[in-house]
Amino acid sequence: MSKNSISNSVIRRLPRYYRFLGELEHNGYVRISSRELSEKMGLTASQIRQDFNCFGEFGQQGYGYNVSDLRQEIGKILGLDKQTPMILLGAGNLGTAIATHIDFNNKGFDLIAAFDANPDIVGKKLGELTVKSVDELSSFCAENKPVAAILCVPMSAAEKLVNTLIACGIKGFWNFTHYDMKVKHKDVAVENVHLGDSLTTLSYGLNDFIKEK
Amino acid sequence: MSKNSISNSVIRRLPRYYRFLGELEHNGYVRISSRELSEKMGLTASQIRQDFNCFGEFGQQGYGYNVSDLRQEIGKILGLDKQTPMILLGAGNLGTAIATHIDFNNKGFDLIAAFDANPDIVGKKLGELTVKSVDELSSFCAENKPVAAILCVPMSAAEKLVNTLIACGIKGFWNFTHYDMKVKHKDVAVENVHLGDSLTTLSYGLNDFIKEK
Repeated sequence: MSKNSISNSVIRRLPRYYRFLGELEHNGYVRISSRELSEKMGLTASQIRQDFNCFGEFGQQGYGYNVSDLRQEIGKILGLDKQTPMILLGAGNLGTAIATHIDFNNKGFDLIAAFDANPDIVGKKLGELTVKSVDELSSFCAENKPVAAILCVPMSAAEKLVNTLIACGIKGFWNFTHYDMKVKHKDVAVENVHLGDSLTTLSYGLNDFIKEK
Repeated sequence: MSKNSISNSVIRRLPRYYRFLGELEHNGYVRISSRELSEKMGLTASQIRQDFNCFGEFGQQGYGYNVSDLRQEIGKILGLDKQTPMILLGAGNLGTAIATHIDFNNKGFDLIAAFDANPDIVGKKLGELTVKSVDELSSFCAENKPVAAILCVPMSAAEKLVNTLIACGIKGFWNFTHYDMKVKHKDVAVENVHLGDSLTTLSYGLNDFIKEK
């Protein structure tokens, strides 16, 4: 089945399957039935079977899934067998937390550089990286050809920076700003992380629990 | 229309509407048509009209929406007119970034305390807060009655801590761990932020752009 025919909601579930299967493998599971997996994950067994069928035949009726094979296959679909070179833009609090908290190599990426516009931050150590000045961005990209970028810059800097990055060959953005780049740039992959929106959504969910003040 | 009948996908769009309307208000807009709003947001006008109709009658045929009224109404639906007391668990890199980066008061929350188990972190300044020992958690909650918690702790600590927090009266979780609390605890509001899954999803989106190595 071609990639384009896989629905977005199935794709959204894949990272979670991948994580769960990794935990199962770690705990010594060799095979697992869709029913067992469904109980552990809080999904229905038929949902799981449908999802996996999108990618081909993984299970065998009555034998369940081979945990390691299935995980590896989902990893390939997600592109985790690659190491895409990635750069960080903005090494303030959030950028620093992202750079030091995330296990990039296990997510299909290799964080090769970090940039900031603030002279007080340039030169700072960030794990094994040293923060570079954003003035070096174009020459760095010409030489090292990063394909993906993490955006942790202020909203005011985002639009111009995205134009520069796309001109430098960046094809994928992990976007922590509120700049909505898909409106102008259709031909890049964008994954938005709107932390503020996420907190706002929690506020909605909590509304039921809070007494009117 | 009752809250339960509003679909999850509409709810997910509300924070973005709220943000956009705030920017419009800031830029001096008084009224806006669904068509104009749709162009700015990259949605269809009929989608926007449908979404807003879930909550009642905001627009007037041919006159568009009153930006300020609509924003205020969406804010109320999202519970942003409240200030729910919230605590942070885990003041490492990520917890620190969250605590200092997010404008809690504008998202319906008031961050009143931060806790950590690591003696090297306890006592650290976090904006206006001083990180407390997790040993003080129960007594603090009994006295100050926080309703929501941010989880930025290691996966290994999450399950036990969630049990404690629920016993302490926490009703809503902003969960940055991979602990899937909804499997055991149905009666709390949970908003998961799986940064690793988000990066994995970007890896999938990028797959098209990367040449096989």
